Amino acid sequence: MIIVMNKNATPANIEEIVGWVEAQGLKTHLSHGEERTIIGVIGNERPLDEGQVERMEGVERTLRVLEPYKLASLDMHPDPTFVPLNGLQVGGQQVVLIAGPCSVESREQILETAHAVKEAGATAMRGGAFKPRTSPYSFQGMGLAALELLAEARAQTGLPIVTEVMAPDQVGLVAQYADVLQIGARNMQNYNLLRTLGGINKPVLLKRGMMNTVEEWLMSAEYVLSCGNPHVMLCERGIRTFETVTRNTFDVNAIPALKARTHLPVLADPSHATGHWEYVASAALAAVAAGADGLVIEVHPHPEAALSDGIQSLKLDRFAELVPRLRAVAEAVGRTL
Amino acid sequence: MIIVMNKNATPANIEEIVGWVEAQGLKTHLSHGEERTIIGVIGNERPLDEGQVERMEGVERTLRVLEPYKLASLDMHPDPTFVPLNGLQVGGQQVVLIAGPCSVESREQILETAHAVKEAGATAMRGGAFKPRTSPYSFQGMGLAALELLAEARAQTGLPIVTEVMAPDQVGLVAQYADVLQIGARNMQNYNLLRTLGGINKPVLLKRGMMNTVEEWLMSAEYVLSCGNPHVMLCERGIRTFETVTRNTFDVNAIPALKARTHLPVLADPSHATGHWEYVASAALAAVAAGADGLVIEVHPHPEAALSDGIQSLKLDRFAELVPRLRAVAEAVGRTL
Amino acid sequence: MIIVMNKNATPANIEEIVGWVEAQGLKTHLSHGEERTIIGVIGNERPLDEGQVERMEGVERTLRVLEPYKLASLDMHPDPTFVPLNGLQVGGQQVVLIAGPCSVESREQILETAHAVKEAGATAMRGGAFKPRTSPYSFQGMGLAALELLAEARAQTGLPIVTEVMAPDQVGLVAQYADVLQIGARNMQNYNLLRTLGGINKPVLLKRGMMNTVEEWLMSAEYVLSCGNPHVMLCERGIRTFETVTRNTFDVNAIPALKARTHLPVLADPSHATGHWEYVASAALAAVAAGADGLVIEVHPHPEAALSDGIQSLKLDRFAELVPRLRAVAEAVGRTL
Amino acid sequence: MIIVMNKNATPANIEEIVGWVEAQGLKTHLSHGEERTIIGVIGNERPLDEGQVERMEGVERTLRVLEPYKLASLDMHPDPTFVPLNGLQVGGQQVVLIAGPCSVESREQILETAHAVKEAGATAMRGGAFKPRTSPYSFQGMGLAALELLAEARAQTGLPIVTEVMAPDQVGLVAQYADVLQIGARNMQNYNLLRTLGGINKPVLLKRGMMNTVEEWLMSAEYVLSCGNPHVMLCERGIRTFETVTRNTFDVNAIPALKARTHLPVLADPSHATGHWEYVASAALAAVAAGADGLVIEVHPHPEAALSDGIQSLKLDRFAELVPRLRAVAEAVGRTL
Repeated sequence: MIIVMNKNATPANIEEIVGWVEAQGLKTHLSHGEERTIIGVIGNERPLDEGQVERMEGVERTLRVLEPYKLASLDMHPDPTFVPLNGLQVGGQQVVLIAGPCSVESREQILETAHAVKEAGATAMRGGAFKPRTSPYSFQGMGLAALELLAEARAQTGLPIVTEVMAPDQVGLVAQYADVLQIGARNMQNYNLLRTLGGINKPVLLKRGMMNTVEEWLMSAEYVLSCGNPHVMLCERGIRTFETVTRNTFDVNAIPALKARTHLPVLADPSHATGHWEYVASAALAAVAAGADGLVIEVHPHPEAALSDGIQSLKLDRFAELVPRLRAVAEAVGRTL
Repeated sequence: MIIVMNKNATPANIEEIVGWVEAQGLKTHLSHGEERTIIGVIGNERPLDEGQVERMEGVERTLRVLEPYKLASLDMHPDPTFVPLNGLQVGGQQVVLIAGPCSVESREQILETAHAVKEAGATAMRGGAFKPRTSPYSFQGMGLAALELLAEARAQTGLPIVTEVMAPDQVGLVAQYADVLQIGARNMQNYNLLRTLGGINKPVLLKRGMMNTVEEWLMSAEYVLSCGNPHVMLCERGIRTFETVTRNTFDVNAIPALKARTHLPVLADPSHATGHWEYVASAALAAVAAGADGLVIEVHPHPEAALSDGIQSLKLDRFAELVPRLRAVAEAVGRTL
Repeated sequence: MIIVMNKNATPANIEEIVGWVEAQGLKTHLSHGEERTIIGVIGNERPLDEGQVERMEGVERTLRVLEPYKLASLDMHPDPTFVPLNGLQVGGQQVVLIAGPCSVESREQILETAHAVKEAGATAMRGGAFKPRTSPYSFQGMGLAALELLAEARAQTGLPIVTEVMAPDQVGLVAQYADVLQIGARNMQNYNLLRTLGGINKPVLLKRGMMNTVEEWLMSAEYVLSCGNPHVMLCERGIRTFETVTRNTFDVNAIPALKARTHLPVLADPSHATGHWEYVASAALAAVAAGADGLVIEVHPHPEAALSDGIQSLKLDRFAELVPRLRAVAEAVGRTL
Repeated sequence: MIIVMNKNATPANIEEIVGWVEAQGLKTHLSHGEERTIIGVIGNERPLDEGQVERMEGVERTLRVLEPYKLASLDMHPDPTFVPLNGLQVGGQQVVLIAGPCSVESREQILETAHAVKEAGATAMRGGAFKPRTSPYSFQGMGLAALELLAEARAQTGLPIVTEVMAPDQVGLVAQYADVLQIGARNMQNYNLLRTLGGINKPVLLKRGMMNTVEEWLMSAEYVLSCGNPHVMLCERGIRTFETVTRNTFDVNAIPALKARTHLPVLADPSHATGHWEYVASAALAAVAAGADGLVIEVHPHPEAALSDGIQSLKLDRFAELVPRLRAVAEAVGRTL
């Protein structure tokens, strides 16, 4: 950490900070410029809280030299993490394809979708049982009944199941049915939930909050990792910006930016990232070209009748047409799908 | 709701939508323009899901005529709601002043602060027992011990207590100690938590999510109200924007925008809204001038030693100096404090 | 246009608006709901100013049915526009590749770069003569001398030249040298400049403002088109968001969103859109996969010595390595490069 | 400047940077941590371009110790700048009040407004002659005729005139008529215009770009100051964010943030900052409470007939009612108005 003192800082201010830093078992280097004095902290700065330093008398600002996450960091763990998914390794050579409806709505809907996406080439199936909805008057998910239908679809198709969990007290139940537990965008900083998922032994799909930075996202992954669960997959799903022609702005830059910082697999959800089915194919192709390790795509047999998010869902035949195009791009960038 | 059909919509598309709308018990008016046909929905459109309509064949876009919230709406409830707080009415003539540290850290710290803010003129005391922290390695709050210290501070000063609750299973415990339960910014869309707080009979302070619109915020209030708890106070605490000289951007416009939409009281938190103690006074004065019903201000006897958010905390003497300035502005806009 | 009246609107308010609309030669349809009256405007609404309508007594809000641009609109001009570039057609089957340094800095630098990018497969060469710089103390470009060096590079390599023009009074001079005149992001709404470029007969490359919506961007294109110049190419170069790990956020969604609205060619600048050379390849590949008609890439023989924006420039050999990867993705999506 | 080397930086990399820095006449301090080496630059770093440093081999990132602006900096010029305006000093004890229509539309409109705002207590009059409009089909201002009408209004009322200039070649003409030349938000980074205004001897009102940071804004002021014109006033007019209930988000925090960085006067424009006349009073009162040195308010005798921006204009009587409320708040914070 670098500590820049303000121009009115006194020698006593500097001495106090140096003393405090050294009391934490770290060393310091002073550098006296014409207008400012700078204190360099030497050693493992990660436990230091820059906020605490910034409020000390005479401090103008600080700069972290090391990122605040550790278990999620590529520096600390230079080999990629492979997350097991039904015999595959997410983060490996093969780009995985997770497809299914926003919500489980009926036995017929989920079984029809499961068979169709399996045939089209999907690696896993998604479907919501517990749904976070902006309005208390909207459909909130079928709950346990949905989990049972997902299990039936898995039994018929062999596709593993990815489904969202919204609260710590749901984790036990959902973990009985799901192969991968998803943390939704609105819960990316629900720390009680993150800690609970850190204590199970199933993979976690951690979606990015719609207004969270890459660094905050990695800190949320750090919560899960630090509680003992190493199987975290990150999923970019669009961020909130000023632009309104799309529901979210797909931050495709986050893919290489994450790859430069972490060993965890990085997926993308082009359905939420655009919010319009017409744009899903372009965003999905872009994600694969940019290096994503997998895609999460909303698919519905009858989007116009969907109880949630149908506007961004692909019809079954459109999904089937998209898969070979995704495969062609995956191969163009040296991957399989 | 207004439904704009796209230019290739067929008569059959239009007929299907008209039939669907009328099946919901609503009426329609058709208007055929040169380039587009428009379907007007007549009746109470609130239960309609515009997403569902937008994915029907031939639809280009829709416009809600009525806002999606109802219990929170000024249209439906034109008189202001007064939330009781220790004999006062939040939302009435008097601007309330809630002050205290980000986190409860020790008996000495909280008692010293409680006496000081009481003497300076505070209406209530805040202090965190359970803390949402970006890093798993940061101080996470003293939990139950903090609640007991807050109760002791209340017993000594008579100041009611405002404290945050992070998960549904904490609500019962926190409600035994707190006078007002706060929902933090990161939990504004934690629907399980909102529903649980809708079932208690203590006031709720609902902070705005740093990434959430005014309309989403009112929908979160609607969750609490629709579960039976009428005592919701809204608190603007800054939003995330591109600007980095302040930690957040204080959306002072939200105060009149909320007053035009809802009967619920509107407070402001200038400490989080700026993130720097040097700017807290300006933002606090601005909030009162703009019509806020109350302020939530972080105060700490020794900000440089605070375990969280000290950088935005006022020292006790600076808070005491600010109160008469706030009172002068409150009186200039026809309020008391 | 749809005009939603507020709930207190009087019959006289409604009558006044109907009269005003009809005085513009348009027709109206009234629809009286339980809580609101809605006025539908029938006919060509484009000349109406919604702001003017919204401030009339009794109006709550309005919705445009038709987009405000006309010459740029795909509705009005369903066939793609091909912009001629040295015998190629931008917007056609071939993805074009425009490469070169941010600024022209010396004869040696520009000639070395021109030959290298030509050999690697570039379609055109870029290089700044007049540079918009945040600081008045930064290098502002070599001006006329740079234009002459660009002309020499063209003479040697045959590559056409793309260069920025910053002010209306530079247009004549720049047009003598350049094959394509670029409008930079900061000037996207410099209307005097747009009008001047509408009066010349050379293609214009219109970069998106970092703070501008897709609709505003198309309105800026409309300025150029409406002044008589049909050869406008749009170039997405990243928008400003809250994220700071990259200099800008590449809005890859804008590519399909534009293709759904306009007939103009759409290019992407992965150098500005990321701001870090390590991420340029990912963003460039993503752009091609998403359907971009071309790329603008910063290349420099010695980025560490560049006088501007070297941090986002590729070295010559890295550019040469990227081209076949771009070609593979272009072919995977049915294009050539 | 602090230069953080990446963990793979070699001694040769470090040596090269040290040599380069010292060749600029500056000194260095090295600090070797366990994971990173840090190079501290000692001396006046302002001429260094951090981008250039960041692209050198082995560099991870840099931190400026000194802000990049100099003439605009409070560090360099600790006394406030007073800008003369018709015998008043903007930036002094008195809060100035600039009012008038968005555009000059007719002799009757501007004269009626001028007399009304004069009587209500305005300090100066605003009115647009050249208007930047998103659409090429919207009213673009009356140009010279408007300037003449403004001069007539000044002759009748004694109020000085503030009007916008859009292009360098208009500056001479506008300066013949106006007392203050305004640079609009879209032109905040139109450097040719900034330089031209740096060469005249009339005050400049520099509006903030809707997506520009406080630091970029001060760099634009630096352009004007460095060209020789010391009379720059800054005007916050709202920034673009994700929120859509208001046209812009009024960044009231920018007022104290600027006061901590610069000696230049800071004004606010609550009309653009909200975009709705109903919210203008709240935002104006907030600005004065937060420490603004003046307000720019749009006023129109008949907003519903205005040719531009009527939706955010106050009627004459509403403006007259607002002035005493503003005065009460100004006095509550120790100012006059």
